[in-house]
Amino acid sequence: MITKPTLLIDEKKCRANIELMFSKSQKHGLDFRPHFKTHQSLEIGRWFKELGVTKITVSSLEMAEYFASEWNDITVAFPVNVLEIERINTLAWRIQLNLLVDNETSIKMLSDVLSAKVNMFIEVNIGQNRSGVAPTDHTQIEKIIATIENSSFLTFKGFLAHAGHSYKCRRKEDVLKVHEDSLQLMKALKEIYISSYPNSIISLGDTPCFSIAESFDGLDEMRPGNFVFYDLTQNKIGSNHTSQIAVALACPIVSLNKERSEVTFYGGGVHLSKDRFKDDEGIIFGRVAQKKGNGWGEVVPNTYVNSLSQEHGTLSVPIADFNKYHIGDYLLVLPVHSCMTSNLMKSYLTLDGKHISRF
Amino acid sequence: MITKPTLLIDEKKCRANIELMFSKSQKHGLDFRPHFKTHQSLEIGRWFKELGVTKITVSSLEMAEYFASEWNDITVAFPVNVLEIERINTLAWRIQLNLLVDNETSIKMLSDVLSAKVNMFIEVNIGQNRSGVAPTDHTQIEKIIATIENSSFLTFKGFLAHAGHSYKCRRKEDVLKVHEDSLQLMKALKEIYISSYPNSIISLGDTPCFSIAESFDGLDEMRPGNFVFYDLTQNKIGSNHTSQIAVALACPIVSLNKERSEVTFYGGGVHLSKDRFKDDEGIIFGRVAQKKGNGWGEVVPNTYVNSLSQEHGTLSVPIADFNKYHIGDYLLVLPVHSCMTSNLMKSYLTLDGKHISRF
Repeated sequence: MITKPTLLIDEKKCRANIELMFSKSQKHGLDFRPHFKTHQSLEIGRWFKELGVTKITVSSLEMAEYFASEWNDITVAFPVNVLEIERINTLAWRIQLNLLVDNETSIKMLSDVLSAKVNMFIEVNIGQNRSGVAPTDHTQIEKIIATIENSSFLTFKGFLAHAGHSYKCRRKEDVLKVHEDSLQLMKALKEIYISSYPNSIISLGDTPCFSIAESFDGLDEMRPGNFVFYDLTQNKIGSNHTSQIAVALACPIVSLNKERSEVTFYGGGVHLSKDRFKDDEGIIFGRVAQKKGNGWGEVVPNTYVNSLSQEHGTLSVPIADFNKYHIGDYLLVLPVHSCMTSNLMKSYLTLDGKHISRF
Repeated sequence: MITKPTLLIDEKKCRANIELMFSKSQKHGLDFRPHFKTHQSLEIGRWFKELGVTKITVSSLEMAEYFASEWNDITVAFPVNVLEIERINTLAWRIQLNLLVDNETSIKMLSDVLSAKVNMFIEVNIGQNRSGVAPTDHTQIEKIIATIENSSFLTFKGFLAHAGHSYKCRRKEDVLKVHEDSLQLMKALKEIYISSYPNSIISLGDTPCFSIAESFDGLDEMRPGNFVFYDLTQNKIGSNHTSQIAVALACPIVSLNKERSEVTFYGGGVHLSKDRFKDDEGIIFGRVAQKKGNGWGEVVPNTYVNSLSQEHGTLSVPIADFNKYHIGDYLLVLPVHSCMTSNLMKSYLTLDGKHISRF
């Protein structure tokens, strides 16, 4: 029974999302290395294993350590943090660890202290402007490769990028443009270096591009992550239908205000996160789905979370719907950003009442 | 040694913040019931005990359970969630539990199932529009009081409010206006009901008002919380000087981009939270303080966190300062909202290397 904010997972929707993305990778002959930072759960990871997935992506060394008990080929898709060298060495002894680098200083520091074999990707900035070498900076790229080649522990694996700027798109054609530009930049790099490094690959990963695009010519590996749950932001971008969103936060109703036509619920920034986006109504922190069986159905129209504080949320509802909300009942809130919500909630409850733990 | 995002606490600054607010309560003859949702730590709670504080506020029943091992008079400053009745009954047997209600339905449901003594406050909406009875809705107030009086387990304790709209202020005079209006509304209520309920009190709590105001005539109890650490938002409001901010997130530098004059660091929304505010430079997710001894000194000017993703942060720095930042070093990021950051980080490291755990 729901008594406090509880993250529900619809296993059927989640497995369907996984199967759809996996079959896309198979159709296009791509290596599938899903990003596990969204669900961060060994148990959900096993749903990928059942399909034959053998390699994963994570966003921190700690997360890699957690998954290393069941996965032995892990990419940490974050610019290598040389301060964590002990963790890197320990983990690289246990599993095939793949790291990212985008500068000469880091790779030199790493090669000085590394004591186990690590595959290195050069991270390329294809437009997100967060990290990564400029794709035209061949001098920097060649210096990094030279340091990698010079180390007996490092192996150059290829070029990796994250088209995170796809998250700013609000139309499918804009996502496709980001995707095509990304692919062109990465293919151009591969063409230059493939003859010298025939085993090098190009790897791309972001849920909008891999949900929407249908052409991946020249790509070797895909690493989307959010698709496992999807969320309202992805829906706004055009990646998914709201019916594919596989998690919802159950939030007890604690106060009603008819004058403002608002419902106050137990569920705040410490549960949903303060991630938000602008929609027709204004700034949105979540929407509510209709209860259906043990789970949920369609999104309730014209109804949205307009404010979150630490533990409180406020839902704006059409006045005609106001009497549908009752103290003692709970709402099902679809998250704006499922990665952040699941990171805060730390566990899932399936629709048949099973608890799923996570990192 | 710092190897990954680590929340540092400057115990001296924190204790000074506690002492300053405590002495203000003493000066004005107010009961001090600090809100512990900011630090959520038994150990930091003991710093309050050393001054003679005996009563606290928390924001959830779970948090109350955590603190119940050392505190026996706790207010849960959240509209009572009747779905958690088992927790309420268990806790009310152990300690003096004080709850909030703002509607007749909740108090009736609660009185039907309560099996231990609980003090009830009526929560009043004094302008935040989150929860609370309208201060003019005497009919509703009297219905709630009648239900309380009718129960052998419930005791009417008075009126409680949170002037959360003070967080929207950006000038001290605006905060003072919020404070004076709040006090007037609460005093007017007390005047009506004090003769019938001579033990009822009025309780207010928010860090901006209690940091800035100097007049509390008619008030009985104060419940600020954030002041224990303060943060950039409070500084923007005018509650504190940045030198009073008692926590900073140490974030390893992992990538440098001279062209954009940006520093990418290990520290993202899962560490700092996505809380933000608008400042002269645009949307701000954090600022950096200069290292000083084992801790930090002044805020680095014209330097700000302009973006956060799950694990990455990006710091915009003046080009003249760019060469001061080095891979392998770490930044000290002052949080926009210390309650959310400490909730995510789950522990503190003091400047002399001691770990402090929390709920």
